[in-house]
Formats: sequence, C-alpha cells, structure tokens
Amino acid sequence: MKSKNLADIFLEELKDIYHAEKQLVKALPKMAKAATCQQLAGAFTEHLAETNTHVSRLEAAFESINEKPKVKKCEAMEGLVEEGGEAIEEDLPDHVRDALLIAAAQKVEHYEIGSYGTLRAWADQLGYEKAKALLTETLEEEKAADSALTKLAFSHINRDAETEPAVAK
Amino acid sequence: MKSKNLADIFLEELKDIYHAEKQLVKALPKMAKAATCQQLAGAFTEHLAETNTHVSRLEAAFESINEKPKVKKCEAMEGLVEEGGEAIEEDLPDHVRDALLIAAAQKVEHYEIGSYGTLRAWADQLGYEKAKALLTETLEEEKAADSALTKLAFSHINRDAETEPAVAK
Repeated sequence: MKSKNLADIFLEELKDIYHAEKQLVKALPKMAKAATCQQLAGAFTEHLAETNTHVSRLEAAFESINEKPKVKKCEAMEGLVEEGGEAIEEDLPDHVRDALLIAAAQKVEHYEIGSYGTLRAWADQLGYEKAKALLTETLEEEKAADSALTKLAFSHINRDAETEPAVAK
Repeated sequence: MKSKNLADIFLEELKDIYHAEKQLVKALPKMAKAATCQQLAGAFTEHLAETNTHVSRLEAAFESINEKPKVKKCEAMEGLVEEGGEAIEEDLPDHVRDALLIAAAQKVEHYEIGSYGTLRAWADQLGYEKAKALLTETLEEEKAADSALTKLAFSHINRDAETEPAVAK
C-alpha cells in the first residue's frame, strides 16, 4: 500500500464534487417548482442548465487526466441538499419559503465555490492545464449564480417574506 | 399553530450557525495539532481565537433580539467538520495532510460565509441593526480567514505536497 499524494487527493475531490453536481441536477427542478417568485424559479431553471454543463466539464476533467468519471459520496453535500428539501416540504408562507430556498441554494453554491477553488489550486500545482481551465470556468459560474441569488433576495424576496402575513393554521 | 415568518427562520438559522461555531471551537485545536506547517498551525490557532469571538457575538445577537442562545443541530456542518477529522486520521504524507486540512477548513469557511451572508441580509430586512452589525463583523473575518488559507496554500503548501515523495507502506 502506497500513501496518497496530491494527485490522489485531487482525484478524490473531483469524485466528491462530481457526486455533488449530480445531486444538484436532481434537486434543482424540485426547487424551481417550489419557488413562488417566477424570477427565482427562472434562476433555478437556468442554474440547472449550467449544472448539467458542470457535470459534462467534470467528465472532461476526468478524461483529461486519463481517469473514468466516478462519484464519491459526500455527506456534507447531502446534508445541504436535504436543507433545500426541508424548505420545500415545510408548511411555510410562499415568500418565506422563497427566502429559505435562496438560503439553502447559496449554501450549496458556497460548498461548490470552496471545492472548485481547492481543485483549481491543486490542478495548477499538478500542471493539469486542461482540468484547471475547465474548473475555472465552472468556478466563475458558481460565483455568478451566488451573486444572482443575493441580488434577487435583496431586490424583493426578503421584503416580501417580511411583509407576508403569517397564516394561522 | 402559526406558520413561520422571516423572524422565525432568522432565529433558526442563528441557532444553526451557533451550533456550527461551537463545533468548530472543538475541531480547530485538533487541526492545529495535526498541521505540519507551522504557519498553518498558527493560522488555525489564530482562527480558534476568532471563532471564540464569533460564539460570543452570536450570543450577543440572540440577546439583541431578546432570545436565549440555543443550538440547532446542523448535519451539513457536522459532515464538513468530519472531513477535517478524516484528514487528521488518514495515513498521509505530512504536506499532503496539510493541503487536505486547508481544503476541509475552506469548505467550513464557505459554509459560514453563506450562512452569515443570509443572516445579515435577513437582519437588514428585519431591522435588527445590532445583530446586523455583529453578523457583518464576523462575516468579514470569515472571508479574511478563507483568503489567508488560500494564500498559504499557494505560497508553499501545495508545492510541498506535490514534491513530497509518497511513502511506501
């Protein structure tokens, strides 16, 4: 048995984020359906299309280092996606649910920003130029998706959530 | 039973991040001990002092809205802290472990950046001025901690990890 090197932990992290993106492909349509604000539903649907591209880019990154795409189960990301599921299932006023969906989605985005940031740094060190370029493209899109959600929250969703009357059950 | 409003989900998120920070207070000394690079160990020790301040600030934020500090268990954060634990326990070359400790710590930082960002936005909407100021201070420190780790990784830790010979077991 050989102990791991930087290339080994790079490959493991690649499998982790590959699993994360695949989970997100399943979660985003449910989040879009649960959103009341049409702009928020649109943002989730748009990010689903991007997420499918992120999956393809990861497959290209595996290929670029002569590896087959494989997933590694990531408990943390499962927990984060679960939070989005709770926002969908809980009995909440419409705009409060929207605010909670944004919160859950931004935690997912930040998980991905952290992971892609690490992967890009390691790809750079390892001289994996092709993988580095692919990871950089996705990293920038995750940051943009996070900013778009912040903008939506501040434009009206948080205000709508606050002014929405609580419904007596 | 009354359905939740924005103030309710703010309070829940505050309890979630309070739990997260308390878990981090326990994890950081172990991460500092496991780090080979003295600068990295120092960064973790420094961030432990900050994290203790973050706990106190959260307690002040609870107080500012007339609530008692309580924790809400966060599965995602437990998973993230667990990743740091794996980096410590795995049989790895010294600098590869350091690179993995940074990766785990940055995912934790990003979880916190996402959470504090949401909390600050909600505090702003709710007119919780005191809480907003406290949350903003911590958010900026989390971002700075994340940047400091990126700098350390690029300055020499990733390079040391790559050039370190794998040890045959």
